[in-house]
Amino acid sequence: MAEIRRDVVSGRWVIIATERASRPHDFACGRGESRGGFCPFCEGNEDRTPPEIAALRSGGGAPDTPGWQVRVVPNKFPALRLEGEVNARGVGLYHKVNGVGAHEVIIENPRHLLSPTQVTAREFEPVLQAYVERCAALAVDDRLAYVLVFKNVGEAAGASLEHSHSQIIAVPVIPRRVHEEMQRCEVFHKRRRQCLYCDIIEQELRGGERVVLDDRDFVVLSPYASRFPFEMLLLPKYHACHFHRTEPDGLVRLAHVLHEALVRMEMCMEDPPWNLAIHTSPVTGLEQGYYHWHIEIIPRVTRIAGFEWGTGFYINPLEPERATGFLRALPAEDVCARTGLASCAQPTADLS
Amino acid sequence: MAEIRRDVVSGRWVIIATERASRPHDFACGRGESRGGFCPFCEGNEDRTPPEIAALRSGGGAPDTPGWQVRVVPNKFPALRLEGEVNARGVGLYHKVNGVGAHEVIIENPRHLLSPTQVTAREFEPVLQAYVERCAALAVDDRLAYVLVFKNVGEAAGASLEHSHSQIIAVPVIPRRVHEEMQRCEVFHKRRRQCLYCDIIEQELRGGERVVLDDRDFVVLSPYASRFPFEMLLLPKYHACHFHRTEPDGLVRLAHVLHEALVRMEMCMEDPPWNLAIHTSPVTGLEQGYYHWHIEIIPRVTRIAGFEWGTGFYINPLEPERATGFLRALPAEDVCARTGLASCAQPTADLS
Repeated sequence: MAEIRRDVVSGRWVIIATERASRPHDFACGRGESRGGFCPFCEGNEDRTPPEIAALRSGGGAPDTPGWQVRVVPNKFPALRLEGEVNARGVGLYHKVNGVGAHEVIIENPRHLLSPTQVTAREFEPVLQAYVERCAALAVDDRLAYVLVFKNVGEAAGASLEHSHSQIIAVPVIPRRVHEEMQRCEVFHKRRRQCLYCDIIEQELRGGERVVLDDRDFVVLSPYASRFPFEMLLLPKYHACHFHRTEPDGLVRLAHVLHEALVRMEMCMEDPPWNLAIHTSPVTGLEQGYYHWHIEIIPRVTRIAGFEWGTGFYINPLEPERATGFLRALPAEDVCARTGLASCAQPTADLS
Repeated sequence: MAEIRRDVVSGRWVIIATERASRPHDFACGRGESRGGFCPFCEGNEDRTPPEIAALRSGGGAPDTPGWQVRVVPNKFPALRLEGEVNARGVGLYHKVNGVGAHEVIIENPRHLLSPTQVTAREFEPVLQAYVERCAALAVDDRLAYVLVFKNVGEAAGASLEHSHSQIIAVPVIPRRVHEEMQRCEVFHKRRRQCLYCDIIEQELRGGERVVLDDRDFVVLSPYASRFPFEMLLLPKYHACHFHRTEPDGLVRLAHVLHEALVRMEMCMEDPPWNLAIHTSPVTGLEQGYYHWHIEIIPRVTRIAGFEWGTGFYINPLEPERATGFLRALPAEDVCARTGLASCAQPTADLS
């Protein structure tokens, strides 16, 4: 019989189908061939994007010219603009705010690659540096309440340009999902005097059956109430509420752990489309000591239909414990061939 | 400049792009040609589904034989099963329930049609009767907490079989999204002694700019914080918490209003994929007098990417007021040619 599991942070319910002995191949759905054509994100085409906001050029060079490793530009069709003051206003029962905010694009590589797993873990480090630097820069703007880093890989996951890139959207209000997570964490913290995520990490490391990677500082889990096959959650083991305050050393480590998690997921599912989003504390107001930043990684291989839309209730055809087993069971030499590094402390416990 | 609007019930924020003068055609994306092949839902193939639970046979006839107008069968691959008792259990911080529940399919028509808009409004009436009858039958099962009716049209909206059908899933817990809506309604009701949805209807009818259809008993709105182009919300104008208690007369009226709303949406967007979900009160416990049932209708023409997943924050490229204008502006004779009835009191106010 299926199990209905509740996510302790969001309160979301998920039907976990435990009867079907699915194999990873059942969920394989490639993100498709390169669509080809002109790419404004490739090195040499710098004049085809808005002028750059920042770039990493280890060999020097002028802005908007070749020679960069990572390049940050404004979104050409921004959802929001950094102009004027924030005005909130009621409209009868309703509420609105004018669209002050930022919408930036982080071009992760001068070459036309489709996923960060096509570079080594070390080459992925500057991407996380760019995340932190842009988040820190936007965090000081008093008009902004929240800075979100996210990434879409593959057309089915919403990537309109295939050249590997991330996006940052900064908004003057706190998104609902983050607000809900924070509320639950606050309630838990008031009652137990500890962080809900820290407790989850402790329980997961003790049990072990959903631990994909167990690094010194970071852990990658298959969430207990995973909505999708091979969904993953990356958290710092130490308590920290703001992603953008991660120290340079920690960032290098994080790049390696995240990269290996992505490599394992892509190997298991044969390069699926996927999304990544960094959940961190708001940048306004007091320190939210009860919140714990984390990264959600979601392969987009099952369709969201009326049931999920209607209820926020998901059906997952693969038990997260089985997904963890598949992610761990990949041959270490194949994983290392793609990351260029030894594995980030993959748990050795036998899951069979 | 874009506007960021908050949905008063869910607390969800939506960036409404007000700068682009989009036309309905910009969002047109057909649901594709019929895929052909064998269809287990067509009349004559009754032996290819599990035995029927119920059927409307105005001419009589034995179960699982031809001669039906609407037929209800168990889902062949059910997410949940109606066997045994509900057992809830904690697992450390986590919580789970065994998968007791029901998963039924309502085959809406003996012919191989792809959408309810391919029949007339009158032919659509028995579908709503089937909804109500099955909901009422499941509502008396003490093990079940919630009964959801939903519908997927088009592969991109999650329909795995194209023959027009709806689904009912009954679950032993209350889905998060419904729970959240109910909580907000309860808070509002405690403070103001009235129903939040009743207030929304009053405000919308007074303003008029988002009213798509204004029937005597039902209203169809473009939600103030619409997440998607041409998203619609259908509500009874009278206060009612349970969909399945709608009287037979009201049901006929509802069928006509819903059918016309769907016809208008499909005409505007050239037969897009879409989802429908009926939000109603839980079937357990006390009367939830503060909740007001309603139907969400969501065209699936924009992709959900990392930003939406990461935050529950949406970007809608079409102002709901403009969408309303397009939905209303369709020539009445073209609409009537598809519904077979006069229009359900379309508002006459000039929106230009």
